Order: sequence, then structure tokens, then C-alpha cells
Amino acid sequence: MPDAASTHAIDDPDYRAAVVDLLGVLAYGELSAFERLAADAALAPTIADKSALAGMAVAEHAHFERLSERLAELGADPNAAMEPFREPLDSFHRSTAPSDWLEGLVKAYVGDGIGQDFYTEMAAYLDPETRALVLEVMADLGHSAFAVDRVRAAIEADGRVAGRLALWGRRLVGEALTQAQRVAAERDALDALLVGSPDRPGMGLGGAGALFSRIIEQHSRRMASLGLAA
Amino acid sequence: MPDAASTHAIDDPDYRAAVVDLLGVLAYGELSAFERLAADAALAPTIADKSALAGMAVAEHAHFERLSERLAELGADPNAAMEPFREPLDSFHRSTAPSDWLEGLVKAYVGDGIGQDFYTEMAAYLDPETRALVLEVMADLGHSAFAVDRVRAAIEADGRVAGRLALWGRRLVGEALTQAQRVAAERDALDALLVGSPDRPGMGLGGAGALFSRIIEQHSRRMASLGLAA
Repeated sequence: MPDAASTHAIDDPDYRAAVVDLLGVLAYGELSAFERLAADAALAPTIADKSALAGMAVAEHAHFERLSERLAELGADPNAAMEPFREPLDSFHRSTAPSDWLEGLVKAYVGDGIGQDFYTEMAAYLDPETRALVLEVMADLGHSAFAVDRVRAAIEADGRVAGRLALWGRRLVGEALTQAQRVAAERDALDALLVGSPDRPGMGLGGAGALFSRIIEQHSRRMASLGLAA
Repeated sequence: MPDAASTHAIDDPDYRAAVVDLLGVLAYGELSAFERLAADAALAPTIADKSALAGMAVAEHAHFERLSERLAELGADPNAAMEPFREPLDSFHRSTAPSDWLEGLVKAYVGDGIGQDFYTEMAAYLDPETRALVLEVMADLGHSAFAVDRVRAAIEADGRVAGRLALWGRRLVGEALTQAQRVAAERDALDALLVGSPDRPGMGLGGAGALFSRIIEQHSRRMASLGLAA
């Protein structure tokens, strides 16, 4: 465990700024996930599916509330902390608006998976309290199993959807990494948290590169579990 | 209090069928309200507004869960109970999809208001337990004050929006009453609950007509509170 990841790290203003950024991007991400899952519920083919998606949306909203509360505890204004991430995340969602129920399921599974991989690895460089919160809000809420089940069934029923959804998955990962790089380039504190600084060990530039490779690998594994070519 | 509204009324199969219909339409209405408020959150101009709308959507979802639980307690399958109302409600929402944030706010305020007026009056003909649940899920969750505040501010900032929103309000009430009549015509049990039957006092055909007049009056009052001509 790096020294910086002590309970008192939060007293260091640079570290605190990075944590506020991190919780801000996570909170806005959860609020967006809530909206996206609710929109997916509206596309659901049956009331049972609609109801399942709505329940998942509500669970994401509970995460959003946990993150907002923690931001307030740290003396930050949650809305202000989220603001810098609004445009990049909205832009990601605008450029990847699902055209149907299956695209929505693939997007939630693949997109959340990339987020989970990234933030779970980042959690290793955080103080214990922040780390526990990040791991809690990144926990899978049953959405993966649901998406895998519905997408595989759709491909079994009509093999032609597989080609279209495979292309869709590639677009999603491309857009996600583009926006993630944009955020890292603009938010120095967040970038320093990931890469590290003289005072605080991070994963280093090489480590960050290796992390992106692992994210792509895990993305390919998720596409395969959907029955899709990555 | 009519005799039929006793705690044992639920043992009468006709009355029970009407209650299952009523809870079914309310549950699907809450699930739709959840989706609609979440979609409105996506159109919100600020993160603070987005967060407020998302919170209201989650509260509607809690109502949906209460209604589903009660349906299950009555031995009904909640999804099956909702199914007959899916098409009419989806059709209402399709034909009244808001094109922007203000139209969404007016729709939620005006549409929910009509629903509240209708079901609150209907509650008088229900057994005490069902009545309490209907009144609970029909309670205003702070959405009215929020919508009135935001719409009035928008009209103050630019008077031209008032004409467009007034037309929008008229379209909403027309579509809502059309769909309500369609539901009443197709669901005999629900219709009998409202109008009454030889065994069970209702408001009578004349009473139902008077109810519709009151709904239109209250609608006009709500439009006025938004600063709009009805």
C-alpha cells in the first residue's frame, strides 16, 4: 500500500482536489447511468424487462446519492464538483445514443464494464475510505448478467444482429477512450492521481499505458461473453 | 361511506378484479412517470435541476414498487395487471413527447394533476386499505412547486414561450381524456367501480360527467398557476 493512501492523505489539498474530481466524475457518471437505464427501460420489449431496468436505474441513483453525500462531507459542492465532467460525459452519451433496446443493453454492459475496470484499478491509489466508496459504487448490480442473457437470446433468435452489435461495441470503446483521454488531459489533479507525482506514487506513465491495454483486453472478453466479435 | 367500501369488499371477486385493474393502471402510470421524469432530467439545463428531477423520478419508482407489492399481496401478477394499460399509456406518451425541458415540466405538472384529481375522487369508492394506498401514491412529491417555479421564470424571461406552452397544455388535456375514455370503455370492472353497479354504489353516470367537468376546471386552475391561458 503506498504511503499516500493513508487516512490522512485527504488533508493534503492536492490529494483532496483529486478526490473531489474523482468523486465528481463518478457522481455525474452515475447520474448519467441512471438516465440512460431509465431510457433503456422505455425501450424494453416487455413490462418485466422494463421493471428490471427501472430497478437498476434506481440503484445507480442510490450510488449517485452516496457520492454526493461524500462530496458534501468533504466540504465540496456536489454540483460544482460534477460540472467539469458534464460536457465530456454528455458528449459521449450524445455520440452513442442507442437506436434500440439491444444497443442500449450492449452500451450499458460494455460502457459500465470499462468504467468499472478503470476506477477499480485507480482505487488502489486512494485512501481507504475513498477506496471503499469507489469499490462500492462500481459493484455490478446484476446488470451484466441481465444484458448477457438478453443479448445472447436475441443473437440466437436472429444471427444477423451480431454483426451490427459488434460494430456498435467497437464504436463504444473508441468513444469511451477518446472522452477519457480528454478528461485526463483537462483535469491535472485527476491525471496526477493516476500517473503519480514526486510526492505520491501512482501507476506511472508506463503503468497507465498497461492499464489501457488491460481495459481493451477485458473489453474483448466482455464482447465475447455477449457472443460478439470485439 | 358506501357499504361496499368495507375491508371485506376485497373478498368479492368483481370488486377484487376492479381493484387489480385500478392498481395495475396506477402501477404502470408510476413506471411511465418514472421514465418520463428521468427523460426530463436528461433535458435539464443545470446539474441542480437534473438532480432534482432524478430524485422525483426515484420517488415515483418507490410508488411503483408499493403498488406492485400490493398487487402481489392480492395474489395478482403485477406485470399481468399492468399489461392492459400498457398500450393506452404508451400511446399517450408517444403522442405527447415533450420537445424540450419546459414542455416536459408542463406535461408532468398538468398530466399528473389530472391523474391526481381523477384517482383521488375515485378513492372515495374504495375499501379503506386500497384508498389509503391510492392517496399515498397520488401525493404530490414537490414536483408541482418545482414545475410552477421553473415555468413562470421561463415566461418572465421570454414571454413568447407562453403561447406555445398554452397550446401544449390544451393538447395534453385532450390526449389524456381521450386515453382515459378508451381505458374506461375497455375495462368493464374499472368502469363499474367508477359509475357503480346494482350491488355497489358509485358516482353514477351523472356523477362521472360532473367529475370530468371538475377535472377540466382544476386543469384550468393549474394552467393559470403556470401563468398560461387554459
